[in-house]
Amino acid sequence: MELFEKIQASDTKYKGKVLTLRVDRVELPNGDNACREVVEHNGAVGVVPITEDGEIILVRQFRAASRKVMLEIPAGKLEKGEDPLACGLRELEEETGFKAGNIEKLITYYSSPAILEEVLHLYIATDLIPGKVHLDEDEFLECIKIPVDEMKQKIINGEIQDAKTVIGVLLASEILCKK
Amino acid sequence: MELFEKIQASDTKYKGKVLTLRVDRVELPNGDNACREVVEHNGAVGVVPITEDGEIILVRQFRAASRKVMLEIPAGKLEKGEDPLACGLRELEEETGFKAGNIEKLITYYSSPAILEEVLHLYIATDLIPGKVHLDEDEFLECIKIPVDEMKQKIINGEIQDAKTVIGVLLASEILCKK
Repeated sequence: MELFEKIQASDTKYKGKVLTLRVDRVELPNGDNACREVVEHNGAVGVVPITEDGEIILVRQFRAASRKVMLEIPAGKLEKGEDPLACGLRELEEETGFKAGNIEKLITYYSSPAILEEVLHLYIATDLIPGKVHLDEDEFLECIKIPVDEMKQKIINGEIQDAKTVIGVLLASEILCKK
Repeated sequence: MELFEKIQASDTKYKGKVLTLRVDRVELPNGDNACREVVEHNGAVGVVPITEDGEIILVRQFRAASRKVMLEIPAGKLEKGEDPLACGLRELEEETGFKAGNIEKLITYYSSPAILEEVLHLYIATDLIPGKVHLDEDEFLECIKIPVDEMKQKIINGEIQDAKTVIGVLLASEILCKK
């Protein structure tokens, strides 16, 4: 079955600092028309940093859309054209004060592929080496360490509500179990 | 550490059918000000339907923001004030033609908590009973069945790029392993 939708026209409704919102007029597979509201975003990178003791370094920070303080893996937005791995290494050090001696790709996924262009690149970082914390002016967060198994249990118990953290921890746990 | 950001003013920049975009002027924990772009959304529900043979029923459909045909668990948007469980049961039947004899909650999470209000409620459905497919006018999809272990491998291999499908399959697999 043909499933593709062809864009016939695009209308940018808002262009901001981080987000742009456009409405596409599309041709559906049956030839009819429909409108699709799409949020443009440059993407982001998240890193699951694992200490020698099998703990994950997490950050607690307030998030503007959920209006909650969330427990998350370190992460940051990609600049246009920026290399995801370089971004991950930088955000890890800036937010946690650790550099990664070893870093491996976990997954690339869409946060919400019907409405949001944001792609998330996730990595697992091990062999951590002390570096230097450097937060943005409008960034306030605190770091805490939690053992991998305890984090997995927190996910199952419903205590972790951030998509990238759920995915990062579950995939990192799979990898660590196999080693 | 105080991490909360207080909203001082909100300005709606776009109000559409599915998405509303607003800019909040917030007071940061240190008293400074910043702007936060936030996309409002009513939330959504996804269901991991497991057949008697241990297969997951998935849907292939084109997604407007990723501009790709994606392999996903059945899912649908919540109407304002709608019960997530009722929405999940309805979307499961409309998209796959199966009703759930048994349904359990897996998780509730934010797709991208810094910028998007969307909350996803995920369920696992078993004891499937034949029902009736009913697609929206602008909805085109096809169903396929894949064994749970094969889907988990596809996630690890990077073949599955939809957040709710990655989370739903990994959590369903955890539950099924324990039974």
